This record gives sequence, C-alpha cells and structure tokens, in this order.
Amino acid sequence: MSMELTNQKLFGIIIGVGLLSGMLVAGVVLATIPQQSTPTPGKVTFTLVAKLSGFEGVGGTIDGKVNPDLKVSPNDNVTIILKAGEPVPHDWTLDSVGKSETVSTESSLGKSEVKFNFLAGKERVETYYCSIPGHFVTMNGKFIVGTPNQVQPKAASHLSNSVIKSPTDIPAPVGNRSAKNVEFTLVTKEVIAKIDDGTSFTFWTFNGTVPGPLIRVRIGDNVTLHLKNELNSTMVHSIDSHAINLPGGGAAYTQVKPGETKSFTFTPQWEGVFVYHCASPHIPTHISKGMFGALSVEPAAGLPTVAKEFYVGQNEVYTQFPKGTQGHQEFSDAKQLTETPDYVLFNGQVNALTKPGFTLNATVNTTVRIFFAVGGPNVASNFHMIGGVWDRVYYETDWTTPNMINAETIVVPPGSALALEMDITRLGKFILVDHALTRTFDKGSLGFLYSNLP
Amino acid sequence: MSMELTNQKLFGIIIGVGLLSGMLVAGVVLATIPQQSTPTPGKVTFTLVAKLSGFEGVGGTIDGKVNPDLKVSPNDNVTIILKAGEPVPHDWTLDSVGKSETVSTESSLGKSEVKFNFLAGKERVETYYCSIPGHFVTMNGKFIVGTPNQVQPKAASHLSNSVIKSPTDIPAPVGNRSAKNVEFTLVTKEVIAKIDDGTSFTFWTFNGTVPGPLIRVRIGDNVTLHLKNELNSTMVHSIDSHAINLPGGGAAYTQVKPGETKSFTFTPQWEGVFVYHCASPHIPTHISKGMFGALSVEPAAGLPTVAKEFYVGQNEVYTQFPKGTQGHQEFSDAKQLTETPDYVLFNGQVNALTKPGFTLNATVNTTVRIFFAVGGPNVASNFHMIGGVWDRVYYETDWTTPNMINAETIVVPPGSALALEMDITRLGKFILVDHALTRTFDKGSLGFLYSNLP
Amino acid sequence: MSMELTNQKLFGIIIGVGLLSGMLVAGVVLATIPQQSTPTPGKVTFTLVAKLSGFEGVGGTIDGKVNPDLKVSPNDNVTIILKAGEPVPHDWTLDSVGKSETVSTESSLGKSEVKFNFLAGKERVETYYCSIPGHFVTMNGKFIVGTPNQVQPKAASHLSNSVIKSPTDIPAPVGNRSAKNVEFTLVTKEVIAKIDDGTSFTFWTFNGTVPGPLIRVRIGDNVTLHLKNELNSTMVHSIDSHAINLPGGGAAYTQVKPGETKSFTFTPQWEGVFVYHCASPHIPTHISKGMFGALSVEPAAGLPTVAKEFYVGQNEVYTQFPKGTQGHQEFSDAKQLTETPDYVLFNGQVNALTKPGFTLNATVNTTVRIFFAVGGPNVASNFHMIGGVWDRVYYETDWTTPNMINAETIVVPPGSALALEMDITRLGKFILVDHALTRTFDKGSLGFLYSNLP
Repeated sequence: MSMELTNQKLFGIIIGVGLLSGMLVAGVVLATIPQQSTPTPGKVTFTLVAKLSGFEGVGGTIDGKVNPDLKVSPNDNVTIILKAGEPVPHDWTLDSVGKSETVSTESSLGKSEVKFNFLAGKERVETYYCSIPGHFVTMNGKFIVGTPNQVQPKAASHLSNSVIKSPTDIPAPVGNRSAKNVEFTLVTKEVIAKIDDGTSFTFWTFNGTVPGPLIRVRIGDNVTLHLKNELNSTMVHSIDSHAINLPGGGAAYTQVKPGETKSFTFTPQWEGVFVYHCASPHIPTHISKGMFGALSVEPAAGLPTVAKEFYVGQNEVYTQFPKGTQGHQEFSDAKQLTETPDYVLFNGQVNALTKPGFTLNATVNTTVRIFFAVGGPNVASNFHMIGGVWDRVYYETDWTTPNMINAETIVVPPGSALALEMDITRLGKFILVDHALTRTFDKGSLGFLYSNLP
Repeated sequence: MSMELTNQKLFGIIIGVGLLSGMLVAGVVLATIPQQSTPTPGKVTFTLVAKLSGFEGVGGTIDGKVNPDLKVSPNDNVTIILKAGEPVPHDWTLDSVGKSETVSTESSLGKSEVKFNFLAGKERVETYYCSIPGHFVTMNGKFIVGTPNQVQPKAASHLSNSVIKSPTDIPAPVGNRSAKNVEFTLVTKEVIAKIDDGTSFTFWTFNGTVPGPLIRVRIGDNVTLHLKNELNSTMVHSIDSHAINLPGGGAAYTQVKPGETKSFTFTPQWEGVFVYHCASPHIPTHISKGMFGALSVEPAAGLPTVAKEFYVGQNEVYTQFPKGTQGHQEFSDAKQLTETPDYVLFNGQVNALTKPGFTLNATVNTTVRIFFAVGGPNVASNFHMIGGVWDRVYYETDWTTPNMINAETIVVPPGSALALEMDITRLGKFILVDHALTRTFDKGSLGFLYSNLP
Repeated sequence: MSMELTNQKLFGIIIGVGLLSGMLVAGVVLATIPQQSTPTPGKVTFTLVAKLSGFEGVGGTIDGKVNPDLKVSPNDNVTIILKAGEPVPHDWTLDSVGKSETVSTESSLGKSEVKFNFLAGKERVETYYCSIPGHFVTMNGKFIVGTPNQVQPKAASHLSNSVIKSPTDIPAPVGNRSAKNVEFTLVTKEVIAKIDDGTSFTFWTFNGTVPGPLIRVRIGDNVTLHLKNELNSTMVHSIDSHAINLPGGGAAYTQVKPGETKSFTFTPQWEGVFVYHCASPHIPTHISKGMFGALSVEPAAGLPTVAKEFYVGQNEVYTQFPKGTQGHQEFSDAKQLTETPDYVLFNGQVNALTKPGFTLNATVNTTVRIFFAVGGPNVASNFHMIGGVWDRVYYETDWTTPNMINAETIVVPPGSALALEMDITRLGKFILVDHALTRTFDKGSLGFLYSNLP
C-alpha cells in the first residue's frame, strides 16, 4: 500500500473528520475491551443537576461532584435523573443511546426533571454532555462501562498552593521626587500549584506569583535589579524588560543558574508601562508557564493621583488535556505551536479575580487605574470591562495624554503592558473579560470589580 | 497494551498526521463496504467547467450544480471532461487515481479542455478537488462509488428565509437637538435561514437580522429599552451594550424568557459607537449565532452631515461541516473553542453585501460613513476597503477628532464598534474585506461599494 | 453501524484524542510492517549533542546533521550517548522505551553525558524528541527501525536560490522636490528557493524577492507602473496597492498572463506607507507564497532625514509538513484555512535577517527608520525590538505626527504597512521579533540589528 500522501489528501481527512470520528470511537471501544466474563446486569441510577457550569452529582459516590465519572457495569440498566438547575435549557446526551428531554427551571423552556433510561452496553469510555449549542465545553464527563483502559492524567498535587497575584498587591506610586538609586530583587520559583478546581500545573514564576511583582520606578532613576534563581529550580531563568535599554532588555546579564544571583543596573529612559518576562530558552514556554509582569516608568512629577490602583496580568496556558480535566496537567508543545490554549488566565488561575480576597474593590465616584500586562506568549487580549468603558487609555505612549477615551475593547498584544483609567460613577459589579468571549467563559479570563459606597 | 500517553506522543501524532491519514482513509473505506454482489461495470462521463468558485456540472443530473456529487458504480469506466472556465489554471484530482492535465482559457497556462479516464474501483467516498495551491477550499466535491454509508448533514430548510441586514436600513442621525426621552423595542427571534447557497443555519437574532438594528441616541437622552423574547424561542435572551453604564451593560435587567418583555432606562454618558450583544449563557454562542449590533451615542450638536451612511456587522460562525456543505449546519462547540470558524460574515450571509439590493451605493465626490460592529465572538476583523482608504477613523474615542487618517487596514476586536468615513473621489467599485484574506475568499466576508454618478 | 454523527461526537473525538493517538500509532506500526525474515540483531550506538536548536549528530553517518534520522534494524541493541551542549537541560525520549536522564553543561541541572540503552523492537518509524516543555518543536527526529514505508516529502531543490530581500536594498528617500512623472517596473517571478536549511519552497514573488521592492513616490506624482509576468510563470499575477485610488488598487488593470506586460498610471493622494500585493485568485495563496511589498507616499517637503533606513516584510507560509522537515515543501490549503502556519518569516527565509549580509547595521547615537509591511495573508504581527522601543510610530496616519511613542509591541494587521523610528542610544545587538514568540522561536520571524561605533 502506498503511503504517498499529498497535502490535499491530508486536507480531505480534515474536512472528512466527521466521517472518521465515528469509526475511531468504535475502534477504540473494541480495542480496549479486555477478555472477561459477563457480569450480572443490575439497576443503576444517577441524579444530576444541569447547569452551564457543569452537571452536579447528587447522592451516592457522585454527590457534590461536577461532571462526575459515571461508572456502571456492562449491560446495567441505567437511569439518569436530570434536574433543572437554572433557566438555561439543558439535556443529557450519550451518543450511543441518544439524548434526554430538555430541562429548565423556566417551564416554557423545559421540564423541571426528566428520567432517561437505557442499557449500558459494552465496556468502554464514552463522553456524556449537554447537546445545546455552546454547552459541551463546560458540561461533559465520562460514562465508564466496566474497567476499560483509560488515558489518565497524573494525580493532581499541591492543590492548596496558589500562584494568584493579588490585584491590590502593588507598591505605592513613585510620586513627585528626584531621581535616585533604587533596588529590586526578583526570585524565580518553579511552583506546582492549583490552576483550576481539582487541577494542578507546574508554574514557573517571578516571586511565586503570576504575574510577577509590579515594579515602579521614576524616569532617570538608577535602578539595580537582582535576579535570584531558587536552588531547586530545574531551569536557568532570566529577565527581559521592554523598559530596559540594554542588550536583551537585561536578559544578556541575567541567565541565572539554580542557586545563583545576578545583578545589573539601568536607567529608565522611556516613560510608560512595559512588560518584563523571562527570556531563557524556550522563551515562549517560560512565559506561558507564568514568567511575566509589568514595569511602570513614572514621570518626574509623579502620576495623577487616583483612588485605587489594580494590577492584572493575562497569559495563556497550553496543556495536554482540555480545561476541566481533573489531575496534573502537563505542558503541551503542540498546542503552543498552533496557538490554541486550554487556559486563558487573569492572575494565574481560572477565574482568579472572581474569588474572595482577589476581586477588585473600589468606591463609587472615584477613579481607578489598572496596570494590565499581557505575557502571552502568543495571544492578544481584547480587554473589556462589562458595564463600563476605559475612560482613558495610555497605549504605547508616555503619561502625557491618553490616546484612547470612551474605549470599549482594547487590543493588547502579547508582550505589551499599559495603564487604563476608569471613572466609576455607579454602584455595583463590573466584569473584567477578554472579549474573545470563548476564552472568558470556557478558559478562565474572568474577573470582578465591585463599586461600593464610601 | 498501555494507554499511557504523554503530550509529546500526541504531538507526534499531530506532526505525523500525514502518515496516519492515508491509513485512516483506507480504514474507513474498508469498514464502510457493505456485502453486495459485483455490479456490471459501465461507462460514465461527467463534464465539469473549472472555476475557482467551484466545478460547475454540465448536462445530466449534475447540470448547473457547483461541486456536484459524482456518483458511479464500482469498476465503472469513468471519464471526466474538464473545461476551462477562466484564465486561472485548474485541474481535477482524485488521489487514488491521479490528476488531469491543467486547463485554462489562457493558452499559455493550460488547455481549453482535457479528458481524464480511469476505473472507479471499490465502493467508497473520496474527495475530488483542484490541486493548484489555494484552490482546494472552493473546488472540491464527493466522488461516490457504489452506495457506501456517508455522514450527511440534515437537509437544508427555510432557504428562502434571510437574516441579511440591509446596510442602508438605518435610522436618521440624531442631529442637533436637546436631550429627550426616547424608546426602543428589540425582539429576539430564533430563525432558520440561508447562510450560504444550499445551506441553512439556525440564527439567533435581534429583530430577525444580523446584525440587529443600529440604535442611535443623543448623549444625555433618557433612553428606555424594551426587550421582548418571541414566544417560540428555545432560550432566554438579553442585551448588554458597551454604551450602557449599568450592571452587565443592561444584561442584569433583561434576562427575558420566551413570550416575556423586560425594560429598563439609561442615560448614555459616553459618546462614540459601541457594540451591543446578547449576554445570556452560553454568551459566545449567542453572539456567534447572530445576536449583536451597534449603538451610536451622538454629540449634542449632532454628527457632521455626510452624503450616505451604511451599517456593517461582522461575526464568525462555527459549524459541524465545512463551508460549502449543502444541508443544514449545526453549531460546533469544538471549533468555537479553537477559534477556527467555517464562516466569517458581513451582515449575516456569505457575501451578503455583494448581492442585489444589499450592496453599498454611493455618489462620487461625496463622503460616506460606515458604522462597523464586530460581534465576534472571538475573531478580530482587519477591515479594509479595496481601492480606497479610511479617510477618517473614530476608534475608541468620541466624535471630536478622528484618531486615524489615510488608514488602510483597521484591527477591530470582537466586542467593538466604530465609525469610519471615506471620501469617494472616483467612480467604480470598491470591495469591503476582512484583510485576513482567507476569511474573505474562503469564508464569506466580502462586500461591494459602488460609486455612481450623481 | 450508524454513521450519523453529531458535532458533539466529533468534539468528543477532539478532546479524546489523547486516547486515540496511542491506538493510531499502534495501527500505523502494524500496518507498515512488510513480510520479512528476522534480521540478526546487532549493537548500534549513536552520539548526539543536545541543544534547543536540535540534536546534533556526532560521528558516522549522522555526523554534523541536526535531528538526524536514526536507522536501526529490528531487535538491534541501541545505545544513545547524549552529551550536554548548553546549560538548558535536555533529554532524549522515545515513547515506546522511555526517556534518558537529563543533560546540561550546568551541573545543577543535569549530567554532562548520559547513556541510554534499549532494544529497537519492531519495524516502524517513531519520533524521538526532548521531553522538556517547549523543546519538542526544534528537538525531534525519526527513529527508523527496519525499512517501513514512510510518507516522504519530495527532495529539496534549488537550495542555492534565495528570495531574501536585503533590508538595506531600498531606494533613496524622495526628498523635497516637485511632483513629476515617475515610472516603475515590477516583474512577477515564480521561484523555487530555500525557505529553511535543507528545505525548499516554490515562492511567487515580485522581482524575485520577498518582500518585493520598496516603492517610493511623492504625493501628487504621476506614477506609471508596469507589471511584467515572466514567460515561464504558471499563473496570472497582478498588483493591488492600498496606496492607489483605482479599482482593485490597480488589480483591475494588471491581470497579467505569462510573458505579458500591463501598465497603468495613478496619482498618489494619501501620504503614508501602504502594502501592495498580488490580487489574482486565489489571492491569499499568492500573498502567502510571497507576493507583497510596501509603497511609501512621501510628503512634498520630503521625510525628515535619518541615518539609516531598513525594509522588513512579514508573511506566513502554510506547508504540507511541519517546519524542520527536510525536502521540498508543498503549500497547504488546509492549514491556510485554519490560519495555522508552519513558517512566519521576515524577508523570505527562516531567520533571514540574522544571516551574514542581511542583518540591520546602524551607528550608535543615530536614528533609524524601518519600513515594515505585513503581507499575511491572515496573521497580524506583534512587532517588537528586543532591547529597545519604537520611539515614534506612524500608524494609519500621514507623516505629520507619530501616533505612538515609547512603543513596545505594535499590532500590524495583515494587509498593512507602516514606518517606525528608533533612536539608537547604545552599542550592541537588538533583536527583531514577532512577539507572539512561538512564531519567532519555532517558525522563523527573527532578525538582528547591530549598533556599531561610527
């Protein structure tokens, strides 16, 4: 048989994948059936509450679990009790047997509860999901018949570790002062930590957080930067800042081995907000794993005073398994190459800035300033605040004049940082998103800003 | 057999897919051959005219069809008569048998007509195509031997329905007037309609069109917005406008069930052009299916008068089958997750703004203004007018001063809208594109502007 | 068996691909084993130096080769001697047998040399690679057991040909002069040339280089453009410039057959820098293959004088096999459709502007101007100079006022060109990148600027 293959043959496969996939599933199922005696079929019932955030298990071994594994024996008689959890309509679908009726807490859109009964069939792993458009990503789990082999991620670990950078953990503005000598120390740390509920990831960081610390200097300062690499690191790390008029933005002086510290001095010459990031090979991987932050070069007279300042960093993470997988996620070179991330994060964890202690809290009738850094390594942010506008944006400019006003959605490329000001004129909740909304609602780039009474 | 699999194994598969795909096709072919007696081979001839827009069938059952299914029996003796349809060279290729000679109406680039003869071989579905680089996407069809099983989309329906928003269907400018009470009603409608020739799709819309209506208000108006959800809707819908200084941009007040109407009042505070979109879960899907539009907040003195105004909206649609498939297309969650759309549309249908009654028609030596909204949900537009420039662009700013002039290609992120002015100084045709040109020429983001004598 | 398949089934496949890929590899291995007698196993040793740029062969048939094919017989006893080539840690991994210990020239990160011993096993082709995150793309090769069938690209040819446009090969500025008649001739040439070490590609070009020549005119000139298509071309070609106020930007007058010349005259009306590109069908393919350049329309008083001017063009190329494949690469329609290129290039070849004779060389304490054109056809550049900023950017504007200063990373959409100025205030090396860094470090968009003493 000839293996000669043109590009078009390959393309035929891609556009014909619908045809193939049914076959492939079947192939896998057959291939993974071990020899065994037929178990006695029984009756099994699972109760699930249907929400766009996931199917929530009720009772038994699945109680409280989101998108739980549903384990049965071959030929079991299975009943799914599906309860409505919200007005959004949902169903429960298993391709080999069909789909349930639709449920919704809104009676015009579905029933409040339905039962769906079927025979489990042969040993296999099959994906159950909600078939309403847009719901698959957050509403799917495994229907496991018998004990087939499965590709499993390693167990999650260090889930109590967090690399979330608090959006309020930033130094005071430089203010109106003379240029002087200033000194900063960054420590590169490789940290296994939670990236999502039930999921861990090996982050590489500056100072243990994503993004690394916000560094603030005055134009003309004499800045000494020390970079220390923790002794237990597995890689050389470094720093390249777009604010630094030196070879490699400093990276030429800071290829630092584990346990080592290197230092250099520079004088900031350009006002504005700039990214810094690790520039040790393979550079994009170091950034995707968390090594980036912002460096603000402030004017001689200081910045205009605002009531509150916040610090937000976006990066995208490429992993072996899709978002939602429980376990330890390994980095995926393949997905990085095609620029198709599984996670898009603000401040180092899925929906970090929606969590208690990490939301942005402001006072009504004041102005806030957000320092926003996009590490990337590949994906531009479309930065938007639901319920508001960016009143003044300082985009690829100094601090003299904002070059955008009344701005809804700002494209911030990978390897860029900027400052945005927002005049908060009402009480309530604002929502921070990458307005490429699939990233926000399926990959994690979500944050909240609350406007409170004084 | 171990199913342990590292990310790199997976990647090996991806880069090795050329190797695999030949196998897979073979596997499918074998697997789909039903038991049957050998039919008597016959002689079959198909005549096709080769154009980049598709192979056009001539005579018999394929007459007038573009990229027709070519159906034969196993072991038939098949002749393809390929006729040149344009100067661009083309061939007819079937990987299992080879490719024809090249045809072109330009004699230096190919013959005017060629014959290609071969035996049909075993029962299968195989893709025929033109092998000239860039031609596959628009020039491919099915070569069907015998009666193999095929993955088929459902039949198209409601092809006479259209959600095209006329680019001239816009209200008059607000003009120079005092602030006052104004009222708007939007109706959310779920509509099966034509998305491309022979292809239908279930759109979700505001008022039955994509984009929804252009809403124009004066800064400081007291605006009441009513949102009605049609009784036969299957989903809750809502409205979030980036122009609205309220929770969720209004979405907090307008989660509207089928048959219900909700209303709220706001005062526009920021001048400019802003997107509105549905913000009911799953939000990106609601936008991709068509629920977005523009809201223009105009200054107290009114906008400068221009001769003509137009309204264009871009969104991208993710479907189960590739563009060009005849039938009813279902929404694809998977392609939305990887941000790889099948359709990129101006005003709700493939090449809508090139069709009679929907082109942009202006008068020479006048100025036109285009309101341009990008719903997304994920893909930024690179908005360009072939044969002209955007003389003045109001981009993330108020109406005071254009912040770009002489602009060739403008990046407009998903979740953004703006106004562009063009001084038309010559007669003729201008062409509106997303200058990520694969979208325009292979996915549908094409429009025409004609400059006419007064 | 039913072939009915929903979109979600397909999606299940995509997220379940980890499960599948192990199966598929196995399938290929089995399928490609020809009948043969068992060879006598022997001992085989390969020595490789591990660098992120690739595994370098030492000795024997692999001496000096990067990521060499490692050929053994079934059941050979194989030893890999892996030597550290740099501080970055590396290993040698073959999924079917495991991975070696880690090597690094930095003792805290790995050994200086390790041996890895295993039995070759059955006839197959398997990918070896480094398993450190981010290293797969540049560190992988083929481990070939026996003589299995392989998908092979055609042999490379014309590797001594180059389409690199020298960044200094640009005409003098127009200067302060009256408008006058000027004339330019472009010749469209289809050229097989080197795209990467060991890899050739069929470029389509203006004047034999990528980008095509920089064209400079004065506002108000009477410009005559002649477009000649070489006699041995296989396609019609044309020119569309965004600077030209004519139908198709000139494309309406210049659909030129092989051997033919067409001409037209225009008067530039808009100041600035604009892209030109071929606009013959299939247009995106013509651009991806190299047909684009920049046209600068300069003001009546001339441009401000700078010490040096450079010219850089970016396009992305879609090919059948991944970057790194030795041989002749065919164009991939499929990858163009999903906007996932294999190569992202500055000036027509992988890392062209890092090569002797093609770097950007400037004098310290002077200002340089870069004309930067992005052909695309689909991918926006995130243009950054490591170690510096863009001091003044003329972005979608005339030459009057830069609209960005102190700019770190500029989004330049496909179908756009602009001028950037940089004040070079220190000696040393600067690095030109697309800051979507996977493109730079894995796909080729890398260049060097050296600042020298006067």
